[in-house]
Amino acid sequence: MQALILAGGSGTRFWPLSRRGRPKQLLPLDGEHSLLRQTVDRLPPEIEPAAVWVCTTRALAEKVRAELPEVPPDQILAEPEGRNTAPAIGWSIRTMPAAVRNEAIAVLPADHRFGDAAAFRRALALAARVAERDDRVVALGVTPRWAETGYGYLELGDELDAAISLRQVTRFTEKPDADTAQEYLRGGRHVWNAGIFVFRGTTLLRHLERFEPEIAADLEVIAGTPERTDEIYPRLKSISIDYAVMERLDSIVTLPLACEWNDLGSWEALAEVLGEDEDGNRGRGDALAIDARDNLLFADEGSVAVLGVEGLVVVRTADTVLVIPRNRSQEVRRIVDELKTRRRTDLL
Amino acid sequence: MQALILAGGSGTRFWPLSRRGRPKQLLPLDGEHSLLRQTVDRLPPEIEPAAVWVCTTRALAEKVRAELPEVPPDQILAEPEGRNTAPAIGWSIRTMPAAVRNEAIAVLPADHRFGDAAAFRRALALAARVAERDDRVVALGVTPRWAETGYGYLELGDELDAAISLRQVTRFTEKPDADTAQEYLRGGRHVWNAGIFVFRGTTLLRHLERFEPEIAADLEVIAGTPERTDEIYPRLKSISIDYAVMERLDSIVTLPLACEWNDLGSWEALAEVLGEDEDGNRGRGDALAIDARDNLLFADEGSVAVLGVEGLVVVRTADTVLVIPRNRSQEVRRIVDELKTRRRTDLL
Repeated sequence: MQALILAGGSGTRFWPLSRRGRPKQLLPLDGEHSLLRQTVDRLPPEIEPAAVWVCTTRALAEKVRAELPEVPPDQILAEPEGRNTAPAIGWSIRTMPAAVRNEAIAVLPADHRFGDAAAFRRALALAARVAERDDRVVALGVTPRWAETGYGYLELGDELDAAISLRQVTRFTEKPDADTAQEYLRGGRHVWNAGIFVFRGTTLLRHLERFEPEIAADLEVIAGTPERTDEIYPRLKSISIDYAVMERLDSIVTLPLACEWNDLGSWEALAEVLGEDEDGNRGRGDALAIDARDNLLFADEGSVAVLGVEGLVVVRTADTVLVIPRNRSQEVRRIVDELKTRRRTDLL
Repeated sequence: MQALILAGGSGTRFWPLSRRGRPKQLLPLDGEHSLLRQTVDRLPPEIEPAAVWVCTTRALAEKVRAELPEVPPDQILAEPEGRNTAPAIGWSIRTMPAAVRNEAIAVLPADHRFGDAAAFRRALALAARVAERDDRVVALGVTPRWAETGYGYLELGDELDAAISLRQVTRFTEKPDADTAQEYLRGGRHVWNAGIFVFRGTTLLRHLERFEPEIAADLEVIAGTPERTDEIYPRLKSISIDYAVMERLDSIVTLPLACEWNDLGSWEALAEVLGEDEDGNRGRGDALAIDARDNLLFADEGSVAVLGVEGLVVVRTADTVLVIPRNRSQEVRRIVDELKTRRRTDLL
């Protein structure tokens, strides 16, 4: 079994802590180590460093190699530029030796959190067995905790193997609208797509060839003439694996992932996993809160002091500070966009 | 005419910008220059540097001398420690040569703001004439703009000189309760005490001797044996000139001070004098506000970015950041107190 870790994200959602040169996966958001380092440390012991592949961008490759010194450097693959997950996964698998890409490959985001690492490892081992035995794409599914519109949903069909709770997926819906998400949550027949897939590499390439033949053809050209990578890769269609393959595939199966999964998709999502004081304030670093409740206070450098405020995110870095209501923390992207417009590269 | 500038304040109300070693009067809060520098620059031209006296604490004396190089260094008087304004004023006057302290002396806070400097100078010149001619204590009065409970109020009595709007003060009330302040505001017979007094130095010393004989006696001892200053000064009763003399005196007169006076007593008071953008956000330094209204954003170092918040004060310095609602900005003192309790001298 191989692990393919996707570590190319540019991470604007944790601005100002995350920056172009220091995106989310390289940050120690929830503990001492970076999310990427934790992702590798969480792998089952049977996946040795020689079976770890990381796909990142050229801008980040050196930092990723430094973060993962035990992984063979030529298995840390550097895209000329990010083209979303379908090209990244296809290219990474096509880059593996033929014997390797016939094995079960677990595709893992580099920047999620798993409270129960043992449960995660058990789910991954089961998924590998199913992927190899049945030659199917296995998506790990998380029981929804709220009506999230930013995730993909797997509709559960027939049970295929009761002993391991293996279910057919009758439909894959990426990012539903609010009403639909609410319906899914109430209905109890949908699970969140955790973004973790297990399949034989060759199987995924076959699906990609069927649904996105242009991408597949370009990847074959790159495989035959690697010196053309810089010319061809940046022109690849930018599309996620969810839209490119998963939504279109009628043969996905799913296994439950019950391990306190959190995609750490925003400051608000991070708040969920940090301890709180008696007034509901959470955070990290040197913070003082007086007569203040339910704030997320993050001092990466220096300190933070608040009085009389509620439900705010306050993040201090060496060069700036962000103040935003917790329930609007997804909108931090608007600040990043505005900084781009103002050409404030010092803050990006 | 002499000017005596009181520059001993420790300034916790502008934390985190103001610190023990850099109190409010040394900060360029509303412009390019420190409030102290502006106070000297605002003086009428007839008050030359040789007629300027500054009373500060020993901890700040060197910084004050550096800020005012044109003032004779031995006229920048350094208290061993601050004992409030009655000892500071009494000691400063007693330190002046006998001929000097018989002149009109204008006592001026070092950390207030005057929008119309010319009007201020005219009021000061009139006050000096009255103080010398009639040998009275003249307090400059400001028409109240709200029912402030933190100021002193002068009750207006008979008009003594219509040409210059000189009025008798029938009563001086320091820091009234909210109901009383509201009554004063509605009644129209009270003005704010701006903390600016003009009198012959010898006259003030006579009043001090009458109302606070112990302070006066100790100041005489210090004048006769300056080497005992360090022993006696720290034991002086800590009391303001308002409580020690002004409230008890039945012969104060007042002249109107119509010059956009602002005591810059809090972040909220500072907001009043800063320009605002189309969304009502005010401040200084590198600030970005998206979908945010009526905030005071102050970046002394680095930058500040806010989204979706309203009515907040956000102040960033090189080592910390403060977030507090504008209408509670007086309570910043509670943060300073808590930092003292925690012995966080690095932040004080």
